[in-house]
Amino acid sequence: MKAVPNRYRVRFENLDRESTCLEGETVFQSARRAGVRIVGACGGRGVCGTCMVRVLEDEVDAASGSRTPRERKWQRSCELHPGGDCWVEVAPRSVARVVRTEVDERDAHAIAPDSAVRLHEVVLEPATLASARADGDRMIEALRPSGVRRLDLAALRKLPALLRKNDWRVRAVCLGEEAIAFAAPGRPALGLAVDLGTTNCAGYLLDLESGALLGRLGIENPQASYGADLVSRMNFAITSPEQREELRQAATTAVNELARSLCEAVGAAPEEIVDVAICGNTAMHHLLLGLPVRQLGRAPYVPAVCQVIDVRARDLDLACAPGASAHLMPNVGGFVGGDHVAALLATEARWRDTTALVLDIGTNTEISLAHAGELLTASCPSGPALEGGHISSGMRAAEGAIEQVFLENGRIAVKAIGDEEAVGLCGSGVVDAMAVLVQAGIADRGGRLNPARPEVRDRDGTREALLVPGVTFTQADVRSVQLAKAAIRSGIDLLLREAGIDERMLTRVIIAGAFGSYIRVESAVAIGLLPSLPLERFEQVGNAAGLGVRMALLRSDLRARAEQIARTCRYQQLGALPGFQKVFLSRIGF
Amino acid sequence: MKAVPNRYRVRFENLDRESTCLEGETVFQSARRAGVRIVGACGGRGVCGTCMVRVLEDEVDAASGSRTPRERKWQRSCELHPGGDCWVEVAPRSVARVVRTEVDERDAHAIAPDSAVRLHEVVLEPATLASARADGDRMIEALRPSGVRRLDLAALRKLPALLRKNDWRVRAVCLGEEAIAFAAPGRPALGLAVDLGTTNCAGYLLDLESGALLGRLGIENPQASYGADLVSRMNFAITSPEQREELRQAATTAVNELARSLCEAVGAAPEEIVDVAICGNTAMHHLLLGLPVRQLGRAPYVPAVCQVIDVRARDLDLACAPGASAHLMPNVGGFVGGDHVAALLATEARWRDTTALVLDIGTNTEISLAHAGELLTASCPSGPALEGGHISSGMRAAEGAIEQVFLENGRIAVKAIGDEEAVGLCGSGVVDAMAVLVQAGIADRGGRLNPARPEVRDRDGTREALLVPGVTFTQADVRSVQLAKAAIRSGIDLLLREAGIDERMLTRVIIAGAFGSYIRVESAVAIGLLPSLPLERFEQVGNAAGLGVRMALLRSDLRARAEQIARTCRYQQLGALPGFQKVFLSRIGF
Repeated sequence: MKAVPNRYRVRFENLDRESTCLEGETVFQSARRAGVRIVGACGGRGVCGTCMVRVLEDEVDAASGSRTPRERKWQRSCELHPGGDCWVEVAPRSVARVVRTEVDERDAHAIAPDSAVRLHEVVLEPATLASARADGDRMIEALRPSGVRRLDLAALRKLPALLRKNDWRVRAVCLGEEAIAFAAPGRPALGLAVDLGTTNCAGYLLDLESGALLGRLGIENPQASYGADLVSRMNFAITSPEQREELRQAATTAVNELARSLCEAVGAAPEEIVDVAICGNTAMHHLLLGLPVRQLGRAPYVPAVCQVIDVRARDLDLACAPGASAHLMPNVGGFVGGDHVAALLATEARWRDTTALVLDIGTNTEISLAHAGELLTASCPSGPALEGGHISSGMRAAEGAIEQVFLENGRIAVKAIGDEEAVGLCGSGVVDAMAVLVQAGIADRGGRLNPARPEVRDRDGTREALLVPGVTFTQADVRSVQLAKAAIRSGIDLLLREAGIDERMLTRVIIAGAFGSYIRVESAVAIGLLPSLPLERFEQVGNAAGLGVRMALLRSDLRARAEQIARTCRYQQLGALPGFQKVFLSRIGF
Repeated sequence: MKAVPNRYRVRFENLDRESTCLEGETVFQSARRAGVRIVGACGGRGVCGTCMVRVLEDEVDAASGSRTPRERKWQRSCELHPGGDCWVEVAPRSVARVVRTEVDERDAHAIAPDSAVRLHEVVLEPATLASARADGDRMIEALRPSGVRRLDLAALRKLPALLRKNDWRVRAVCLGEEAIAFAAPGRPALGLAVDLGTTNCAGYLLDLESGALLGRLGIENPQASYGADLVSRMNFAITSPEQREELRQAATTAVNELARSLCEAVGAAPEEIVDVAICGNTAMHHLLLGLPVRQLGRAPYVPAVCQVIDVRARDLDLACAPGASAHLMPNVGGFVGGDHVAALLATEARWRDTTALVLDIGTNTEISLAHAGELLTASCPSGPALEGGHISSGMRAAEGAIEQVFLENGRIAVKAIGDEEAVGLCGSGVVDAMAVLVQAGIADRGGRLNPARPEVRDRDGTREALLVPGVTFTQADVRSVQLAKAAIRSGIDLLLREAGIDERMLTRVIIAGAFGSYIRVESAVAIGLLPSLPLERFEQVGNAAGLGVRMALLRSDLRARAEQIARTCRYQQLGALPGFQKVFLSRIGF
């Protein structure tokens, strides 16, 4: 009767990281769960060969006492099932680079910090037998002029040793009526802002006093091993409280991995993070908070909560000061979350007082239409195709991914990231490819690949167009792109209709999001994903959600503003609007 | 490379409980840690034979497939080291009865509940596609007229399923601006009051609406396996953070075991406890809160905190509603804790506006002298002797323990609990025995046992007086009692001296505490433990701390009053007072 199933320790030597591998799990899955950064373009399906590792030593070696490993071959980590503890090396090309999360910095300099977190240096008299009053009581007394009335328990636990180690001098970090952390004098007060995306998570480390950005990092969401899309993850979470807890922990791992790596880079400890702001879509928000998603995943798609949630960092098991507050930006509705609110906050100067669209294109595409002082907001289930997911040659935006497709002297030409040999298509490449296939007449207006064209062939019952040697675009890929672009475009149509205006009245189309910053607007317009407007009306603003959550981290007034924006949004369930199906079908063709 | 050391499951069949036994641990230790109630009069030293168990089946049986156990003998659980999972039966006489924690009920009826916890029945409209607003947002809206602005995260996690299961009707439990728990309509709102003593822990389950006492229970403190006295436990805790954490968990186990058993008895779940009030001495308070005790255990004996601490129940891992508040009554100083404040609160009507002593006699004896509107408070290290600890024939107040010793026709006579055959001495028996030995001249004024007396003999180099066959009182026992009573009496002397008054000015001597309710005052006066005053000035009020913590649980105004009382106390470190040693020595003799 063993209470615990077999678990093996996997040590990633060259990354200086470890993970725990459950029996039956692959090294890839275990790495993903632990937030160890291995590339895995195909998501662990054993087809891309971008997750290579080799075993340096395992329990067999340890048992034989030999420190000289037997000859080891590079192999796919998604096909390697450890049978005991092992040490592996990740192939240099399989060490995931930091994901591209370029933030538009044009607005960033405008954030003058005005955090609700306050810092006070306190000096106490040393305790003596004649004056042995409690450390905490004296600390509260010293902080009372600053409005402090209570000490957080976790902060208090550290106070006695800290006082005695630093000559009765400490730095108190206070929030409202409470001292939430203590530190040695002069240590920084750090803040962490996180945009918790379904696929990628972006983290920003800031100095709360100066507002300076100390570092940024993007990592893959460790929940990816439970399914690329939110529906799979929600279904997994619904199965049992234990599974929901597993996904919660995976989300926590994402935040903690960002905290750990970002702090390490600046020589700080994650415990020095004393304020956290997080945005994410409603499902990610719920999974991180451990909220139930059953009622969110099925009609009528009801969130557990949309309002701002402020909790203790320790209530989310975050690896920062346990008394720190974690601020979750408010959601708008079941499929429009705090990440969209953050994007609206960051881009407010661009859409306020005008008629404008704000889009964040992804697996779910959130759209807000600003018009006449109002915001109409909806989400379109655009699927992963536009990000390169579920596309036969699709891959993440890594080296070798085609990011541009164009016609050169009537022939298809491509540009791959890192100017490497092309091995697949990332999101912007997918949109480009589709536009080129339509422009060149290789696909017709209905989306059918033309078998008469030399680029088109039938193989194993699959019709496909060859873009470059080794990279094809299948008929099924075309259909996926059609569904995605129809979902987005019909969403735009329906919001415009609800507001009673024509698309030509849009003075601005603000495209937010990592993917949105890389697509060529001409291609998106060409395939009908975006309205046909003069190109200068489009603005690609990058990861606006990341900027918005940084703004919320640094300034309490902007947190309040984000709440107002969320409340202003009139959330539309597109599927419940009359004529939804008809509008959608009208946008399928090119 | 196994990460986890061997742990075995020990199932106590007839108690329907389980514990985890670490390698090297005895079944007794494991039971104590888990709060499984096995008698162990000698504390697991293998001398008393009151912790008997027999193994019903173990892994050896399981492996052989035999369900018929081999012949098993009763054996001491403190000498049984499992080598695998096992099933044991606790001997009926070794199942610990509920410890005697008789509460003086004279004052109890006076508590009219006025808790800060408020209950609201809320009915929401069912969610529809057209109206799919978040559950939590609508709940806050419904509760806003009652001043609620936020939902606790743990409460929110349960809300969606609860709403849908109960036809959109729930009971909200609110505290201040927050809803801290949700329950099915009509479920009770329970409160738990705990007096966390060094040796015994008393728990009281109350209905917060009516104030009714639903149950009470006393259990041994599971920390006992780490040392009978606080100094041993503090030394254990100081060694490493892991060991401090172990003691914290043991304290938590005490509270949770009380919550579990008390709720089970009334058919409720511990999660229905929505408010908790706890009192204990400063060290127990610190250990439960996970506060450091290093600075408390050595001069100048500085507490981490004395002020009231209100934390979330989940921050202490308490098995009640995770959003519930746990209120820790304030401490007075390093050796006078919230239990004494609770006793002062419960007995205030008796000491206010007069000159009175309030004593809680135990391993540490807390004394407050009320005089002229002031409270002088001190603690005396009286040791365990007066509770039967470290006394050669000492035992807990269980069946067979001598609770009275008297002279009958010039011969020593005794009365044992349960009118059983006498096997040892509990606290009240110790004081009685000492008084009888002095009165009968068996011990002289200096405490020396008179070898000329027929009751006195020398055995194995130890001089001892025979009380009844099998129960003796040694010269060392006499010395222990002398030290204990001198500590208490000199404490009283010093407080009287600080206040500038004579003991004859005391109009009342209020003796609180479980031990204090059983001693015969005449005996305590006879040995000089208590001042020689007319007997009608003494009041034995039972577990006043237990009553006080119940008062604090039920009424927020009394929590505030307890804070005022704690602040009024002028804490005296007796050892730092001039002439301490001289006064102490003057009280050694009889």
